[in-house]
Amino acid sequence: MGDVAGVGPEIIARAWPELNRLCQPIVVGDPGWMAKALRLVGVAADVQVIRRPEEARTSPTVVPCLVATEQTLDAVESGRVTAAVGRAAYDFLCKAIDLTLAGQADGIVTAPLHKEGLRAAGLTYPGHTEILAERTGTRQFGMMLYARSPGLPADGLGVVHVTLHMALRDVFRHLTTQAVLEKIRLLDALLARLIGRPPRLGVAALNPHASDGGLFGDEEEWLIKPAVTAAEAEGVQVTGPWPSDTLFVRARAGAFDGIVAMYHDQGHIALKLLGGLHAVNISVGLPLVRTSVAHGTAYDIAGKGLADPCSMIEAARVAARLISR
Amino acid sequence: MGDVAGVGPEIIARAWPELNRLCQPIVVGDPGWMAKALRLVGVAADVQVIRRPEEARTSPTVVPCLVATEQTLDAVESGRVTAAVGRAAYDFLCKAIDLTLAGQADGIVTAPLHKEGLRAAGLTYPGHTEILAERTGTRQFGMMLYARSPGLPADGLGVVHVTLHMALRDVFRHLTTQAVLEKIRLLDALLARLIGRPPRLGVAALNPHASDGGLFGDEEEWLIKPAVTAAEAEGVQVTGPWPSDTLFVRARAGAFDGIVAMYHDQGHIALKLLGGLHAVNISVGLPLVRTSVAHGTAYDIAGKGLADPCSMIEAARVAARLISR
Repeated sequence: MGDVAGVGPEIIARAWPELNRLCQPIVVGDPGWMAKALRLVGVAADVQVIRRPEEARTSPTVVPCLVATEQTLDAVESGRVTAAVGRAAYDFLCKAIDLTLAGQADGIVTAPLHKEGLRAAGLTYPGHTEILAERTGTRQFGMMLYARSPGLPADGLGVVHVTLHMALRDVFRHLTTQAVLEKIRLLDALLARLIGRPPRLGVAALNPHASDGGLFGDEEEWLIKPAVTAAEAEGVQVTGPWPSDTLFVRARAGAFDGIVAMYHDQGHIALKLLGGLHAVNISVGLPLVRTSVAHGTAYDIAGKGLADPCSMIEAARVAARLISR
Repeated sequence: MGDVAGVGPEIIARAWPELNRLCQPIVVGDPGWMAKALRLVGVAADVQVIRRPEEARTSPTVVPCLVATEQTLDAVESGRVTAAVGRAAYDFLCKAIDLTLAGQADGIVTAPLHKEGLRAAGLTYPGHTEILAERTGTRQFGMMLYARSPGLPADGLGVVHVTLHMALRDVFRHLTTQAVLEKIRLLDALLARLIGRPPRLGVAALNPHASDGGLFGDEEEWLIKPAVTAAEAEGVQVTGPWPSDTLFVRARAGAFDGIVAMYHDQGHIALKLLGGLHAVNISVGLPLVRTSVAHGTAYDIAGKGLADPCSMIEAARVAARLISR
């Protein structure tokens, strides 16, 4: 359910009929907020309070909600950071991870967290992914941003970032040939599973014009290119480094199934424009299937019934597909 | 005419009928290549070789070409870097600048250069803009990337970059509050002239999530924000710094007329996706009107008659509009 003061409850509520067509959903969250969200968006379904997944009687009119926190959330307000909400979001995620690792669920779809909420609760994780990695004992992990939307080729476009949530000036000491190579491998494996064929990958350059032959930087030559060459030698269909501004235009035209981006905004600027609300996040390298909406808690519109459930539905669709393969 | 071994001659040829509706064009370039390009794309017009603008008998069927180089270009091939072609492209530009400064032309629209060609000719300019700045004695200058295309609001979207052709790792020592402020002012003045009303500007953050309150870097707070505040105090309609990935989505939705980007790929990734072939470059801060196509020489398709003249036509349209105001 994510952060209940955000749009999580209402996008689950609004997506509920569609989610039932894609999988057998169970909400891990707070039953009171779930009921409130269903009323808010006008979806005619009842909340079934459960303690164990096997009690669930999931249907379009029954929303099983597994109680997963000891926090009392009745008094909290939409759009407000509180320690209780932050702690509860963490509890929901941990419960979902434990159930999935125990084989009681096939995968996890997450609604957005709010970092400030986590921090207010004394939890210093930057986001979902780090909690998932820690709790599953995973060291090598990543995130693929994926979109299948009207303006993109039919198989969609996946983007993996070599560096992510860090200051731009810190990117340079985190970029290594090994890190680029690992992300190429992760993207290749995940996309192959998702689209059912060997994907065609493009690797973005770091510098403008891919350094234009060394005029503007040199990381392309000594850092990125060796990773591309090594991946090619392993049989991956990959080329690059390519200038990032034209790379995404070519991807939209169908030249690539996946892109390895060097830093956060490089990939996100493009995929937010291309994917819009269809974009979802997929965890890579974890011992379980987990997808997520690609938007945040949207505190500014939370509790108003305005949030679009499109990314939530797409996240469930992608998770179901990954699980079925 | 730009680099004759690139797509310059053929996009001028293909655009010629349309250019005549927008302005009274004169080609500054090589008559032989102009004639060849007209034949290549099947535009029924003759080249009129001229030495001075006042000789021009511009019409849809007459292409006045002002001889502007002493290089012999008959033997050079499309798609090949040579010193002669690089030097000639430089000569064409210098001639166009001199004519415009002398009041014999109202403005300049440039076809693409090839940096390697310039270098082969012993000229170390990174591109057009630096040649224009030097020859017009301008110290403070910039470039606005501008697109008016079907997916964008009716007045289009302009992007100015605080830093441009440099390694990403060098961006940090070139970014200053003063530089951001100057670019906000340049963008404001140019867009006001172009769209005929005070533009609404958004300033991009440098770090992911605009540093998320200081979690990922801090340039937003001490470097960018003071520039925005100062520009606001001068009466500019400007806000930011905003996370760059959502900023461009909001711009597409009509929230901004112009964006100040911190580095090359930040603005180019977005505008190439949004503007496509409609994108044009507009020089800012020069004592003359100059626009340019937003694509390169495209040596891979040059001489084949495949190049799309859309950006050339848009560049002429924008130049004509700027001159008329």
